[in-house]
Amino acid sequence: MKVSIGVSNRHVHLKKEDLEILFGEGYELTVLRPINQIGQFASSDTVTIKTSKSEIPNVRILGPVRPYTQVEISKTDAFKLGINPPIRKSGDILGSAAVTIIGPKGVLNINEGCIIADRHIHMTPEQQKELGFVGIEEIKLEVDSIKGGIFDHVKLRVADNSYYEVHIDTDDANAFLINDGDEVEIIK
Amino acid sequence: MKVSIGVSNRHVHLKKEDLEILFGEGYELTVLRPINQIGQFASSDTVTIKTSKSEIPNVRILGPVRPYTQVEISKTDAFKLGINPPIRKSGDILGSAAVTIIGPKGVLNINEGCIIADRHIHMTPEQQKELGFVGIEEIKLEVDSIKGGIFDHVKLRVADNSYYEVHIDTDDANAFLINDGDEVEIIK
Repeated sequence: MKVSIGVSNRHVHLKKEDLEILFGEGYELTVLRPINQIGQFASSDTVTIKTSKSEIPNVRILGPVRPYTQVEISKTDAFKLGINPPIRKSGDILGSAAVTIIGPKGVLNINEGCIIADRHIHMTPEQQKELGFVGIEEIKLEVDSIKGGIFDHVKLRVADNSYYEVHIDTDDANAFLINDGDEVEIIK
Repeated sequence: MKVSIGVSNRHVHLKKEDLEILFGEGYELTVLRPINQIGQFASSDTVTIKTSKSEIPNVRILGPVRPYTQVEISKTDAFKLGINPPIRKSGDILGSAAVTIIGPKGVLNINEGCIIADRHIHMTPEQQKELGFVGIEEIKLEVDSIKGGIFDHVKLRVADNSYYEVHIDTDDANAFLINDGDEVEIIK
């Protein structure tokens, strides 16, 4: 049973109030391109993520605005920034890492909100039933490449308006030589 | 059956003639610290690796000098540099990627020599017999972490003066949240 892979590069989600701090009052994100998850998009807007150790420029904001501000990076990014974000589900930011976000109009210091996203697979409740995922919390993925292997702990994310695909970060993708859109095998 | 992991950051091996181009005639590498593989060391000396797209400074040279010049990077580094090095065993550089190496006294353009190292496990011929690896070309490694899984295609490297350990690159380590020196399980 196959599933296609979406490789998530570092990115930021913003709540409306933080968007306005960084980009100015009344600012709205512009759609650069839709992403596979329905209603979501890569915006044309980017910020710089900064810590006392270093910074990473050109980090893309994904829209639309959310109820919380969240910075998703890889472990490689975390080493560069000198921080130790926890591995978390999107939205689960309590006690996660602090960073500074720099926009064209303002600077935002967040005390929590920086995470490394867990590996996960998106599906609708209908797909969960049809494809036999009921009662399953996580799966494994088998990757057949010269630097392949198995990804463990790929968490099910079941919601309406989902697009059926796996999300992994750039460390996972680069370690296993996976390109965005590649198909891999599910092990239940 | 356990084995400890050595995480290889990007590094360079130089032949004597190339060392002299980069650091000056008669130059000899200085030992910063020995590494586990017997007779080898991290030197105090670093170079910059450059391509038409970008560059990576402070890339450490491992000594002693070798019969060939080789640059070992990760896939993450390769994206940054805009090149596509093959996955290779150390020393197998024919037709591998071109880069520019910049030292304090000179610049070297190599037409081949840049690779992404394969995953491998070092052992002596005696260990190969004692530990039951005779007739085996590669193993798998099982990593128990919140972002763990299995590394496939870990090649046996059997030679005298070996130190028994696995070498993986920083992409593998960061994807699976492995630190240098961690112990993982071998699957034959």
